[in-house]
Amino acid sequence: MTPEMSAVRLHETGGPQSLRIDRTLVPEPGEGEVVVRLRAASLNHRDVFITQGLYPNIRMPVTLGSDGAGEIVALNGDSLGLRTGEEIVIDPMLGWGNDPSVWDSKSSLLGMPRDGTFAQYVAVPAANVYRKPELLSMEEAAAIPLAGLTAYRAIFTRGALARGETVLITGVGGGVQTFVLLFAKHAGARAIVTSSSDEKLERATALGADLTINYKTVPDWEKRLRSEGPIDLVVDSSGGETLRKALDAVRPGGRIVVYGGTNGDATIKMFPLFWKHVSILGTSMGSPQDFAAMLELFRSNLRPVVDRVFSLRDAVAAMQRLANADQFGKVVLRID
Amino acid sequence: MTPEMSAVRLHETGGPQSLRIDRTLVPEPGEGEVVVRLRAASLNHRDVFITQGLYPNIRMPVTLGSDGAGEIVALNGDSLGLRTGEEIVIDPMLGWGNDPSVWDSKSSLLGMPRDGTFAQYVAVPAANVYRKPELLSMEEAAAIPLAGLTAYRAIFTRGALARGETVLITGVGGGVQTFVLLFAKHAGARAIVTSSSDEKLERATALGADLTINYKTVPDWEKRLRSEGPIDLVVDSSGGETLRKALDAVRPGGRIVVYGGTNGDATIKMFPLFWKHVSILGTSMGSPQDFAAMLELFRSNLRPVVDRVFSLRDAVAAMQRLANADQFGKVVLRID
Repeated sequence: MTPEMSAVRLHETGGPQSLRIDRTLVPEPGEGEVVVRLRAASLNHRDVFITQGLYPNIRMPVTLGSDGAGEIVALNGDSLGLRTGEEIVIDPMLGWGNDPSVWDSKSSLLGMPRDGTFAQYVAVPAANVYRKPELLSMEEAAAIPLAGLTAYRAIFTRGALARGETVLITGVGGGVQTFVLLFAKHAGARAIVTSSSDEKLERATALGADLTINYKTVPDWEKRLRSEGPIDLVVDSSGGETLRKALDAVRPGGRIVVYGGTNGDATIKMFPLFWKHVSILGTSMGSPQDFAAMLELFRSNLRPVVDRVFSLRDAVAAMQRLANADQFGKVVLRID
Repeated sequence: MTPEMSAVRLHETGGPQSLRIDRTLVPEPGEGEVVVRLRAASLNHRDVFITQGLYPNIRMPVTLGSDGAGEIVALNGDSLGLRTGEEIVIDPMLGWGNDPSVWDSKSSLLGMPRDGTFAQYVAVPAANVYRKPELLSMEEAAAIPLAGLTAYRAIFTRGALARGETVLITGVGGGVQTFVLLFAKHAGARAIVTSSSDEKLERATALGADLTINYKTVPDWEKRLRSEGPIDLVVDSSGGETLRKALDAVRPGGRIVVYGGTNGDATIKMFPLFWKHVSILGTSMGSPQDFAAMLELFRSNLRPVVDRVFSLRDAVAAMQRLANADQFGKVVLRID
């Protein structure tokens, strides 16, 4: 292990351009921790938001990055059966706590305040390390953690999607919604997806989407959906107008799971909410139980959707792709 | 059985004053139905809304009234073990269907379109008739059905209230919220109630409320509640500003159950919804399972809160009391 490594670090906010590739010290494992030699990492909107200063309590300098895969190179204390050299993937949720229904108030995500995965090495608790699914490459494994966790909890733990049900996925293309589509089809559900991009809708069809709607050309999509059978579940990260329409579109007794709010606050009508017995269910990230169950799905032949692979030194260009919402699936960094 | 009876009927909308006390025919029991000689009925906001024309598809003339208690005087077909002379209370939810999570689209409430309980006799399906809890008077039994059903489903079936939890009851005084308070205390929960009336707050304290807040004098009650420990569940029928504040007040992982929207549409912030994993759960009325479980609570020493008893011929004055929101608990009609 060399004492120094490359890491993508934020010293001041101002967008992805503010990131620097630093030479910094390889971390030491604390008690109950492991050090991982990272081979790949993946990007989340959270990383972009942090560079833009759109996150509370930003600590700097910090190595960004929640998602990573690599090999264990050092252990300290209870290794939970892990061995040096083992290929692993990291659960980025640190200290979720004992209540499966919500995080502990002291929990946090890897990659701020704790130094993250956009580096050659990272130290994490041994409890956050899981064996890499054998069929996946390092790039594929690194694409999974935070988005896969958020999607799994949204669709199953919160949304309770069942075989044969219909799920509406609003604004497909981002990392989480692409996993929602993958998981929905894997679970034997019917998937309806919306996007403003015909190209993304074509990609979604190739992944198994049963019906696609361009919300730019069909702005009253909630009316269009009335002839498409009952919508059992909506998974949304937009809020605003989209959530208002989702409440119209969902069937009586249906569920709307919300894990973001990029379109801002939502004005919702009370009558369809209470009259139709609709459940609006907030979610973000997920519990260790969610992570373990989610990763199991990838031990058969399921594969995440990798949009593009950049090298670690091109992290700024990779982030820009995410900031522009150009991607379909996950943007990955290869770490040499 | 006389062929004619008195009934409070609506021939045209225009508020409670439009009601008439008619002489009309005693109903005959259809197949699988019973005829009940009513001894008491109780009022719901639904009845007022119907007189005001604020309800879809109003059929007239119609005998209003969802809630009633009395004795069985006639049976037709499968009597489900019921006998003439038996003292009963009526579940007003007609044709809920087989899905406990939501009503069937063909379901309806007794008292429009089907003639209801503001009359000396009513015909209802035998399946909607339950033995009156022995300790209750006819007036008390008639106070329970729709409000008790709505409250039970809100707090338990949807809200999953557990012993030791804290529930916030916004705007206590109406029929449903008074049952929510009763049930919450019966279940061993801590109850915080709000109202604009100090008199109603005093009544709530007498019923066991642990903390009361006048939202007129403490308009930022959601901030005041921060020092009162975590709020696990909010039960609300206001919507609007109240729902927005409830989202601030509820703990991470908490639930907000909504069964009405008297304050209009709500603009809700996305961040606390998804970040705190909050569940906003719509509900209205309840299933046969809810009704049976709710009624069981009254077979011990629990008693509903009767605000005032009017005679059937004073139905207009009784409705006016409800329309003015002057009541605390249920407004009942005695039927001679």
